[in-house]
Amino acid sequence: MRLLEERIRRDGVVKSDQVLKVDSFLNHQMDIGLFRAMARQWRQDFADAPINKVLTIEASGIGIAAVVAEEFGVPAVFAKKSESINIDGTYYATSVRSFTHQRVYSVIVSTRFLGPDDHVLVIDDFMANGCAMDGLLQICDAAGATVEGVGIAIEKGFQPGGDRLRQRGIRVDSLAIVESMDPQTGDITFRD
Amino acid sequence: MRLLEERIRRDGVVKSDQVLKVDSFLNHQMDIGLFRAMARQWRQDFADAPINKVLTIEASGIGIAAVVAEEFGVPAVFAKKSESINIDGTYYATSVRSFTHQRVYSVIVSTRFLGPDDHVLVIDDFMANGCAMDGLLQICDAAGATVEGVGIAIEKGFQPGGDRLRQRGIRVDSLAIVESMDPQTGDITFRD
Repeated sequence: MRLLEERIRRDGVVKSDQVLKVDSFLNHQMDIGLFRAMARQWRQDFADAPINKVLTIEASGIGIAAVVAEEFGVPAVFAKKSESINIDGTYYATSVRSFTHQRVYSVIVSTRFLGPDDHVLVIDDFMANGCAMDGLLQICDAAGATVEGVGIAIEKGFQPGGDRLRQRGIRVDSLAIVESMDPQTGDITFRD
Repeated sequence: MRLLEERIRRDGVVKSDQVLKVDSFLNHQMDIGLFRAMARQWRQDFADAPINKVLTIEASGIGIAAVVAEEFGVPAVFAKKSESINIDGTYYATSVRSFTHQRVYSVIVSTRFLGPDDHVLVIDDFMANGCAMDGLLQICDAAGATVEGVGIAIEKGFQPGGDRLRQRGIRVDSLAIVESMDPQTGDITFRD
């Protein structure tokens, strides 16, 4: 998506060949006009899919998912990060490894808000190793929900998350895929 | 706001005389159509205020703040909860006590996204003791930003947060103020 790529080139900061900072418009300060354009793109790309729920994970995915849900006219659910797994049976729960924070945390979704009738578009701001996304897909699987697709704002194409999902046959729609970044020049190369 | 009060009466669950569960439409599953109606109400109520930024705190406030920011045509910033205060001077930071989780956490906002030119509408889903809101107001104060007002979806009127802010002269616009709840009957009384 050209609009997002141009914004990343303009306002993104290449901190290293692995780390891209986009907190001025995506995941700390949020440009909702940009989110709306992204949501319209996904709406168009998934026009053939019977999506009736948007799923994301706290915290950075929530703002994007809210706008996407409004665009599709469906509810959004955000998975919660929990210190400990609630074992009273009213939550789907899984464990996710965070490379950024070097720890494992639990992710939970109430059984009341995800089930076999749901056709889900899973949304997140970033995909790198895809650990958080794996957790969300496991929760959809546990709920018997159908994953219609995955919408990612920025995928790090040089990390395995996105391509591993595509190899599993999951429809992954990343609006910008970064192939490489040069911290010396700040240059960013996107996948065509 | 009648629409929100009716929704709370219909879908809210009174767990005790202190605890109201609204996770089916507000803070786990999100009804963005409702958020849009709430945002329009705040837009009308604050029509005279030169708001140029919406501030909230992760995670439950983010979806509401995103819709509100779009309604006002301004960026939204969400304060991040952090394990430890970053002391490199690029963040405003404060400590917040969580009664729900019985612990103290740090809240940070980058100095790049809040400053003396900002006229802020602070948004959150709930206000009870107001500890999270106090933290956000301290951060606005540290940034030299002007707080134009506070928009809360559901205020627990029997807890001191909202009225304490009003006594300080802060404009608090809670769309539903719960005065009391009866866990036996499920009845909820709202402030007029």
